[in-house]
Amino acid sequence: MTIDLDKRTCPLPASSNTQVLLAHGGGGRATHRLLEDLLLPTFSESQSESRHDGAVLKMGKERIAFTTDSFVVNPLFFPGGDIGSLAVYGTVNDLAMCGARPLALSCALILEEGMPMDLLAKIAASLGQAAKRVGVSIVTGDTKVVDRGKGDQIYINTAGIGSVADGVVVGPERVRVGDKILLSGDIGRHGMAIMAAREGLSFESNIESDCAPLDGEVQSLLNAGIEVHCLRDLTRGGLASALVEIADASANQIIIDEETIAVREDVSSACAFLGFDPLYVANEGRFIAIMPAEQSEAALETLHRYDEQSMPTIIGEVTEGRKGLVTMNTTIGTRRVVDMLSGEQLPRIC
Amino acid sequence: MTIDLDKRTCPLPASSNTQVLLAHGGGGRATHRLLEDLLLPTFSESQSESRHDGAVLKMGKERIAFTTDSFVVNPLFFPGGDIGSLAVYGTVNDLAMCGARPLALSCALILEEGMPMDLLAKIAASLGQAAKRVGVSIVTGDTKVVDRGKGDQIYINTAGIGSVADGVVVGPERVRVGDKILLSGDIGRHGMAIMAAREGLSFESNIESDCAPLDGEVQSLLNAGIEVHCLRDLTRGGLASALVEIADASANQIIIDEETIAVREDVSSACAFLGFDPLYVANEGRFIAIMPAEQSEAALETLHRYDEQSMPTIIGEVTEGRKGLVTMNTTIGTRRVVDMLSGEQLPRIC
Repeated sequence: MTIDLDKRTCPLPASSNTQVLLAHGGGGRATHRLLEDLLLPTFSESQSESRHDGAVLKMGKERIAFTTDSFVVNPLFFPGGDIGSLAVYGTVNDLAMCGARPLALSCALILEEGMPMDLLAKIAASLGQAAKRVGVSIVTGDTKVVDRGKGDQIYINTAGIGSVADGVVVGPERVRVGDKILLSGDIGRHGMAIMAAREGLSFESNIESDCAPLDGEVQSLLNAGIEVHCLRDLTRGGLASALVEIADASANQIIIDEETIAVREDVSSACAFLGFDPLYVANEGRFIAIMPAEQSEAALETLHRYDEQSMPTIIGEVTEGRKGLVTMNTTIGTRRVVDMLSGEQLPRIC
Repeated sequence: MTIDLDKRTCPLPASSNTQVLLAHGGGGRATHRLLEDLLLPTFSESQSESRHDGAVLKMGKERIAFTTDSFVVNPLFFPGGDIGSLAVYGTVNDLAMCGARPLALSCALILEEGMPMDLLAKIAASLGQAAKRVGVSIVTGDTKVVDRGKGDQIYINTAGIGSVADGVVVGPERVRVGDKILLSGDIGRHGMAIMAAREGLSFESNIESDCAPLDGEVQSLLNAGIEVHCLRDLTRGGLASALVEIADASANQIIIDEETIAVREDVSSACAFLGFDPLYVANEGRFIAIMPAEQSEAALETLHRYDEQSMPTIIGEVTEGRKGLVTMNTTIGTRRVVDMLSGEQLPRIC
């Protein structure tokens, strides 16, 4: 099978070079191009270990993970969560993906003039509850107010710091040929829950977001002595984008098996109905972990012991081949290329 | 002289209880009430040393300062700075006010669909240059895009982490009767530069923002062995709000002398013309430091040695008296109460 990689990328509209498009926030190729061409070159050189979801810095004998995310999700409330819980779990999960134990969060609010005070109170309560569930403190904050019509009620930024244990180094550069890829559960729920809430659709069964903290699962793997090579949560761009990024950054090919990837039936129907591919739909409580093949069974058992409800699976492996290529053996017996989207399927998903 | 403190507060409109007003972002009483009544109670208890401008956390043997600020300044460019440099210096200064040496920044952008790409490039370049000037790295980031009409081109959040040396503890609880109050330079320039740019006013001379990093000045004081009790940068709410907060938190009275407070003549004229009191106008490169009286001369000399252009002065002292009361001996020989504003003089100043 030969694949012309250069033909895989759907072109972005020409205006993407001159102005910001929603696609630039979608987590796909447009986001990457904006980062790599415009933002990263202007920022100063850093001595930190750079991670996809954050940075790890040395300070005395300690290693500190540091990460940030702004949340602009629309609508503010959706089945299974809201912008408040999302703002806590999103940043906690970025810390977890650095292999860190979360220590503290900051919380900065940009409020729109005229926002009802009881709506703000409800979101603040959700932030507080989510932080309590994780056992992380919100230690510092900021509040700004912008004029009516210059915001969308509320935008939240959380930054987080966490502690990385000695010897824990995760990143695509550690990924080796033969490594197995573990997926922590079913995919596609967060994106479809948002879509349903946004469009006022009611599917046969109610799809709830999977929005949840992942630090416990990750720590259980590390504590069990699993030699985790790479971690990635499956937010904007979904499973597909995460795999393509890792295949690219590790200079390997990745092969996955469709039949090992769990998608709930109602999520699958909703995706079919709306024309989405679950591989690209955002999750807020799922991650992949890449590890040596001989440890993959122990990893599955560890996660299952941590949470009996969880259904982790091994979905594929890292192979020699073309750098950045991800292929999937489909349930109907064909092989398909899994590429990164140019823009976004779903803007303002988080 | 008797002052009825309860009559000092201008009432906020009744709607301030039911919806968010611009005043809630102004740094005055409305901001405080929002924080104390609504936000802080819902967030979980913290083990950190809480500081006005950030938090200080223990991690192993290290003490880490952690802070966050969102920047929504309007206009994006103004004489002496722009939203990019402001976003770097603002957070660097919050770290400095915790007594910390800045280590790393995060940078999260919320962009409005349709924002010109060259405008974004200009702001990114300014962010990078400001970080280089301070010698701090931007190590992690995030980019979100919101729909046209749901933002104001760009909002920037920066969070920062810094290192606090052994023995450095600054905060209003350390302020003692007899302590002197040092002001690092002239006040009122940032707010007036923004006002002039916003309203298209051109004053006789061009007023430039004082926007600058303060970590060098603060470190020079600490390195010189000055026993700094409290630090505060004079942003939203200006010098007046900072003094009232400290007088309140330290349970002391503060007396200042108007003639020791430098206000440039063009700034003073602009304030008079627009009806502003320079005591309340925001600065982005000025701070106060409170220390034992016997060290105040050495502190002045240290700052002057650090920057020969700087004109620090001792503006007053901490006295016994009524908790939270700030009075000023005016140049015309009277004594005036300096209160905190209810709302804001200038919305979206940073």
